[in-house]
Amino acid sequence: MDKLKRWTDMTWIDINETRGEMIALIPCGSVEQHGPHLPTGTDLYIAQGIADKLAGAGLPCPAERLVMTPPFFHTYAKESDAWPGTLNLDGATLALAVRDVAEGLFRQGIKNIVLLNGHMESYAFIMEGLQLATGDKSGVKAISVNWWDFISDGLIDKLFGDKWPGWVAEHAALTETSIMLYLRPELVRMELSEAGVIPAPLPYKIFPQKKETLPPSGMFARADGASADIGKILVDEVVNKLAPIIEENFRN
Amino acid sequence: MDKLKRWTDMTWIDINETRGEMIALIPCGSVEQHGPHLPTGTDLYIAQGIADKLAGAGLPCPAERLVMTPPFFHTYAKESDAWPGTLNLDGATLALAVRDVAEGLFRQGIKNIVLLNGHMESYAFIMEGLQLATGDKSGVKAISVNWWDFISDGLIDKLFGDKWPGWVAEHAALTETSIMLYLRPELVRMELSEAGVIPAPLPYKIFPQKKETLPPSGMFARADGASADIGKILVDEVVNKLAPIIEENFRN
Amino acid sequence: MDKLKRWTDMTWIDINETRGEMIALIPCGSVEQHGPHLPTGTDLYIAQGIADKLAGAGLPCPAERLVMTPPFFHTYAKESDAWPGTLNLDGATLALAVRDVAEGLFRQGIKNIVLLNGHMESYAFIMEGLQLATGDKSGVKAISVNWWDFISDGLIDKLFGDKWPGWVAEHAALTETSIMLYLRPELVRMELSEAGVIPAPLPYKIFPQKKETLPPSGMFARADGASADIGKILVDEVVNKLAPIIEENFRN
Amino acid sequence: MDKLKRWTDMTWIDINETRGEMIALIPCGSVEQHGPHLPTGTDLYIAQGIADKLAGAGLPCPAERLVMTPPFFHTYAKESDAWPGTLNLDGATLALAVRDVAEGLFRQGIKNIVLLNGHMESYAFIMEGLQLATGDKSGVKAISVNWWDFISDGLIDKLFGDKWPGWVAEHAALTETSIMLYLRPELVRMELSEAGVIPAPLPYKIFPQKKETLPPSGMFARADGASADIGKILVDEVVNKLAPIIEENFRN
Amino acid sequence: MDKLKRWTDMTWIDINETRGEMIALIPCGSVEQHGPHLPTGTDLYIAQGIADKLAGAGLPCPAERLVMTPPFFHTYAKESDAWPGTLNLDGATLALAVRDVAEGLFRQGIKNIVLLNGHMESYAFIMEGLQLATGDKSGVKAISVNWWDFISDGLIDKLFGDKWPGWVAEHAALTETSIMLYLRPELVRMELSEAGVIPAPLPYKIFPQKKETLPPSGMFARADGASADIGKILVDEVVNKLAPIIEENFRN
Amino acid sequence: MDKLKRWTDMTWIDINETRGEMIALIPCGSVEQHGPHLPTGTDLYIAQGIADKLAGAGLPCPAERLVMTPPFFHTYAKESDAWPGTLNLDGATLALAVRDVAEGLFRQGIKNIVLLNGHMESYAFIMEGLQLATGDKSGVKAISVNWWDFISDGLIDKLFGDKWPGWVAEHAALTETSIMLYLRPELVRMELSEAGVIPAPLPYKIFPQKKETLPPSGMFARADGASADIGKILVDEVVNKLAPIIEENFRN
Repeated sequence: MDKLKRWTDMTWIDINETRGEMIALIPCGSVEQHGPHLPTGTDLYIAQGIADKLAGAGLPCPAERLVMTPPFFHTYAKESDAWPGTLNLDGATLALAVRDVAEGLFRQGIKNIVLLNGHMESYAFIMEGLQLATGDKSGVKAISVNWWDFISDGLIDKLFGDKWPGWVAEHAALTETSIMLYLRPELVRMELSEAGVIPAPLPYKIFPQKKETLPPSGMFARADGASADIGKILVDEVVNKLAPIIEENFRN
Repeated sequence: MDKLKRWTDMTWIDINETRGEMIALIPCGSVEQHGPHLPTGTDLYIAQGIADKLAGAGLPCPAERLVMTPPFFHTYAKESDAWPGTLNLDGATLALAVRDVAEGLFRQGIKNIVLLNGHMESYAFIMEGLQLATGDKSGVKAISVNWWDFISDGLIDKLFGDKWPGWVAEHAALTETSIMLYLRPELVRMELSEAGVIPAPLPYKIFPQKKETLPPSGMFARADGASADIGKILVDEVVNKLAPIIEENFRN
Repeated sequence: MDKLKRWTDMTWIDINETRGEMIALIPCGSVEQHGPHLPTGTDLYIAQGIADKLAGAGLPCPAERLVMTPPFFHTYAKESDAWPGTLNLDGATLALAVRDVAEGLFRQGIKNIVLLNGHMESYAFIMEGLQLATGDKSGVKAISVNWWDFISDGLIDKLFGDKWPGWVAEHAALTETSIMLYLRPELVRMELSEAGVIPAPLPYKIFPQKKETLPPSGMFARADGASADIGKILVDEVVNKLAPIIEENFRN
Repeated sequence: MDKLKRWTDMTWIDINETRGEMIALIPCGSVEQHGPHLPTGTDLYIAQGIADKLAGAGLPCPAERLVMTPPFFHTYAKESDAWPGTLNLDGATLALAVRDVAEGLFRQGIKNIVLLNGHMESYAFIMEGLQLATGDKSGVKAISVNWWDFISDGLIDKLFGDKWPGWVAEHAALTETSIMLYLRPELVRMELSEAGVIPAPLPYKIFPQKKETLPPSGMFARADGASADIGKILVDEVVNKLAPIIEENFRN
Repeated sequence: MDKLKRWTDMTWIDINETRGEMIALIPCGSVEQHGPHLPTGTDLYIAQGIADKLAGAGLPCPAERLVMTPPFFHTYAKESDAWPGTLNLDGATLALAVRDVAEGLFRQGIKNIVLLNGHMESYAFIMEGLQLATGDKSGVKAISVNWWDFISDGLIDKLFGDKWPGWVAEHAALTETSIMLYLRPELVRMELSEAGVIPAPLPYKIFPQKKETLPPSGMFARADGASADIGKILVDEVVNKLAPIIEENFRN
Repeated sequence: MDKLKRWTDMTWIDINETRGEMIALIPCGSVEQHGPHLPTGTDLYIAQGIADKLAGAGLPCPAERLVMTPPFFHTYAKESDAWPGTLNLDGATLALAVRDVAEGLFRQGIKNIVLLNGHMESYAFIMEGLQLATGDKSGVKAISVNWWDFISDGLIDKLFGDKWPGWVAEHAALTETSIMLYLRPELVRMELSEAGVIPAPLPYKIFPQKKETLPPSGMFARADGASADIGKILVDEVVNKLAPIIEENFRN
């Protein structure tokens, strides 16, 4: 199996027959500027790509029970709202959308959810949506995962050493660029990955956003040093750690 | 050009350079049971497929200015909520989501929107979202289109004659099945399109939905008589009529 | 009995004594331009008038158990917002209002609801309100009815023949004018029903609304040919079909 | 002129021609138990009745510019929710509904609003709706009026002397019963106005409401002593004081 | 004991051990202009001060079971929005905030709530919040109290005689100033309590607020005659009446 | 000056006279379990304590222009909802509350806001509130600050060395305990700070929360090694860095 099954490619009868065992995987991304070299859909493409690798990894994971639901493309990336290309839901809208979909899954007898998130800034609103949907229901379980939480400091150090800018600057930079070079190379234009002069990051936020404090390129750190090989290492790491977590949490 | 450009495959710089002229096409579908033979993503796949045909039709349409934004998969299909496979947003959530995205497009300097809808039941909530976003703004324009509004009674009569069950029953039936056979044949399983015994439709709605008044198969009319050839005729008709409307509404 | 009992004319003790058997009929209209000859309350007056005829029809219908609740005057008629005289609730407000009232009825022990709707455009929001209120409650039942869903194509053909403009244009035109001439003739000024030059209808919507695409009179089709006699035929048809549906759905 | 003009009886052209000068009068009531002798629509019937008297009073008031908009029947009467017959909107729904309608009036060029309220408990939510709609708009003006704010302590003393229970207990009691005997005698059943044993009122509220602290009849004070004559005196007092306020606030 | 225990000074283990018996007292105030001589926090300071006196009064009240939760500072004081110093929540926000907190208390096993309110205008929104949180839950009880509802007309007459302006004008005037002189004298600057020329109060509201109808000082009545001694009498009265109510309502 | 001025201790005239220059400092905390040894108000007490130190530090900071607004006690701490003592607003409620208050400040002519946050989990909702309030307004500026963003890795290493558990586990542990020992020692009960057996942290979240994956004490790391001296170093570090940021951002 190369790819996870897609909910939207299945008939209702397919879903009906498998829903008791099904683990619904909800990929969440963003529609957000990702520098001059990565597409605005990067965060979702990474989440979906990792999910598909999970299906084919042959690991102790109930991959055949996993079904990828329709994704959340639009999430919450207001820190990038100053760049064309970013599209957002308000925080409350996003939380309601996640709530509605998770409640719908439970109402239809799907008891198991894995939400795989590719964009940090929307995380709190997504959690709120899951919280509102699960409440203190019994018999259902949702786990939420940020792919970067599986990358250890040790691995980062080994891969990037002194070039590592810290996770806080890791937007369209070393890890995301590497993973996209591995998963979706046709969408990466490395020749354009010039970060330009990056203003020193501020330890606080300003509202309304002030252009002069933001990096003109949309990159908070450089991407040179990124490679498809590194991307594969990162994705493998996530897949290898995530597979047994799914196995353990959704054992029948 | 075979396919419309995808917003999420473009970088923010691509979008920045083209936004003044850009016509953002928002495809809206549903995640909804479509009988035993069509996938739950049918409504969106049709909207996206029509959009792509528009790009390659060589018609007097500014197709090169069109960009497909990320779709709305989840919309409002509560009449199908009794069948597994259907996932919904509440009406208010859907209207807010459409509002947020349309406002975001306007805020970033995109002045032209075409919303291409593939699912009837969500239409009012989508309209409300566009209404809330456009208000009485000047300098922006959104048009919303249901593909079936371009199919004349004459054409229906010519294609289906007495077999035509009326638009109200046209869910997973003759038109949708034909179009899917044309656009996404790999997802259609005609051998399963058995509608079974279809209860006589009620001229009113009951809440909560009562299973015994609903067709077990999810089909409100039979699909036999559907074909890819008919699907092509229908799609061509929509494309031929929609192209000049876009040309006329978004002339520079 | 000439008229249905009105909830707001009853004391709480009247309601208390009858609530176990009561069928609450909620009339929904709009506050919306209806051309130069019909009042802005037309849609509600029609719904209320039909309800009253139901009471006096002597049909197999539990009319004595029906009580007309306070109406929804304000609903959703944003397509007419460009004409003075139209007043609207936002879609979300309308759905909440219907939800609150239906939940209140259920909370007080009324188990049976008939919502009789006179305005197409607000229908989805009203459905959503009923959906939110009923959820999967047991022991309660709401049915929602659009009066025009009881008028067959055959009857339309017999009454109007070639003059029939299609339901989509039937706003302040043949059917509504006829019914008002029958039910509330004192409010109709036929001498003013000049539709003027009606622009060809567009198969799509534009936001913000553009005045030049709208008919100046507010009529999308002419009303000449309307008559009180036809109005009576239409109302009788609705009443004759609706009565047994109520009988069947709310049998004790 | 006997009655104020009704918005819903006018055509859009009537409204268009008069909107520059129009003063829109919005009657607000409640759907609420009013003891064994008064109908649940009492609060609205009083507001509408006062408005109609205003039209015919021949006072220095621009009555010919007044138009009665569709009423708010459903408001907020949760303190009476324990009695069948009461129907409520949630507070937020009510505020939104008032906001939507007032904004609609302003959007259509009506610059002057008088909201005439007949039910105390919903007042804060109605104020909030007007507040949200007016914001700091210029060129528009809304005034809100509770009819009882025009009844002086002196008049109350003269009319009721020692029988006066205080305004806080004046629900379905002396003033409302008198006014209904004057305005809508056919809806009053004085022979049933037995208040029964009325528990001593609590100087605090309990949630959830406890039946044993509430008067079984729904009356917090007795109605004997009410009369149509007193009702006329009260209504005249309101009309006499309100007319010049409208004159003064909406002078052209 | 001088002061009630504060929830925010306790550890979760303290709260856990006492929650079965605990009576959570929620103080509600406002952030609102209170004339030239009283601080903007006056309404909350009074509510908190009364609560603390309750703790030390040695009355038949389970004061040792009372815990003061974090207060609601920001409430709803839009009638004072024209004066700098006033900060408000929208009505819907306030109701949601009260709902969330009360639901949280119930969810954690606190079954008893006393809400002590110091600001009239926000009362309806606070009630709505409690109403939404309690619904028809069993096993929980919330009572809400306005301190002024315990001050009898007789006491007012004895203390203020002819100087009494009526409760409606009692904002930053005789009672609030007296209580602050007793509870928080260091925050009162009596030398500045000059009310200036106070416009005659209107028996209706105007939106948007018109400055010329409002008293420039923010006082609707004079404060001279206020004293700490009177403040003590008022607070003692509230405490003496409230203590047995708490005793009676929350007896184990 | 020892303490920042409090908005709620000022009269409206005080605020009026200073509002043009005023920098409103909004302290945000949480009501949340903080282990067996720290009070549930810890996060707010830290934010307020830092603010007060800022006032007395004699640094190049316009401390005399700073005014502390009423705090947000209740925020969003749903990860601690399983422990008694935690009280939460829903995410949407919190965002609305912050929006309302910030909009109120702007409406009243306060142009400068510093939001000082003491609780990580509520940060996204607070940002959303500021975002909604500031939009693209001109002439206003809000900065938001988490105190921990001023503590460098180097300082952490120097103070705690190998004992440092990582920020993610820093709840009621080394930094918060130290700062409370410095600022509010009377509220700390170090003798109870026994973390007990702490389950290995999960790199993902589970909904509904499962007790067995949570540390029974509420501590995710031990607090031994915390001291008032360290607390002073941490607070000084924040104050020393924050002061010039305020100076620079709000220079007249």
